[in-house]
Amino acid sequence: MADLPDDRIPVDAVPFAEFDAVRAKLAAAEDEVANYKLRLADFENARKRMLRDADAQRKFAAEGLIRDLLGALDNLERASAAAKAAGDTGPLAVGVSVTASQFLDVLKRYGVARIEAAAGTAFDPNVHQAVSQQPTNDFEPGAVTQVVGTGFTLHDKVLRPAMVVVAAQPPAGGSSE
Amino acid sequence: MADLPDDRIPVDAVPFAEFDAVRAKLAAAEDEVANYKLRLADFENARKRMLRDADAQRKFAAEGLIRDLLGALDNLERASAAAKAAGDTGPLAVGVSVTASQFLDVLKRYGVARIEAAAGTAFDPNVHQAVSQQPTNDFEPGAVTQVVGTGFTLHDKVLRPAMVVVAAQPPAGGSSE
Repeated sequence: MADLPDDRIPVDAVPFAEFDAVRAKLAAAEDEVANYKLRLADFENARKRMLRDADAQRKFAAEGLIRDLLGALDNLERASAAAKAAGDTGPLAVGVSVTASQFLDVLKRYGVARIEAAAGTAFDPNVHQAVSQQPTNDFEPGAVTQVVGTGFTLHDKVLRPAMVVVAAQPPAGGSSE
Repeated sequence: MADLPDDRIPVDAVPFAEFDAVRAKLAAAEDEVANYKLRLADFENARKRMLRDADAQRKFAAEGLIRDLLGALDNLERASAAAKAAGDTGPLAVGVSVTASQFLDVLKRYGVARIEAAAGTAFDPNVHQAVSQQPTNDFEPGAVTQVVGTGFTLHDKVLRPAMVVVAAQPPAGGSSE
């Protein structure tokens, strides 16, 4: 400060130019802080989104595998039903029936459930798929008359709808042709 | 500026006190910026870690389910082998064999592989579990003589080791008792 060009400036004051330079730096630093605050908020949102996604992903991680395994389960249950229908009570028939149950029990522990679709329940397009209509007086029109394929959900999401036959109004006075 | 108490201060200068206040604000803002930089770096690391974890999680998401299903697959293969041993070539025996293959094919598509453990291969504690030793001259000591339980890996991680019988040196000159 000894060689100040302007001797009007006393020792307890600072030239405007110097003051303005510091003020400009402060403004820049404050901008930077504001910018970092926005970026941190973005990051925080992204982090929350990732945690949420990871949670959903965990829940449905095995969805593809389970969907693909249902075909093997179908075959097992079909084989078991055919053996039962043929009166086969041998060790293989029993083993297949037990294995099919074991298989389904494991899937249940991971969130899989059979879709209830007994004859007489109302057709629900969210969980049933109509494969045909059956003119009948035995059920209300729109009711399920027969389940031809088991449906499954995973944590309440439909993996495969139940395949059902749906009751239709029979033609009045029998066949009209 | 009209009522400046100290008339020694000219209009193109700023009192030290005011200058220092701005400088202190600047220092605080610069600290804040440095602090935000560290936090952002932490966040960035956490984000990378989460992405990496999510990747590993996706790969091994179905590990528990698959491990639990192996029991059902065992039963299926055991039933199929027993039927084959009994000379049963009926539709149920064929169906069970086909279903076991279908089941394993699905698991393979999701990264599951059988652990190779043929008789004669060297015992590998990473993928084999010795259930007993068999004194024999037919195999080198330490070789697998028999596989009694199939092992499986998921993406090269052992889900279940192969259960094997391991060759041991027979007692010199036969039974020594």
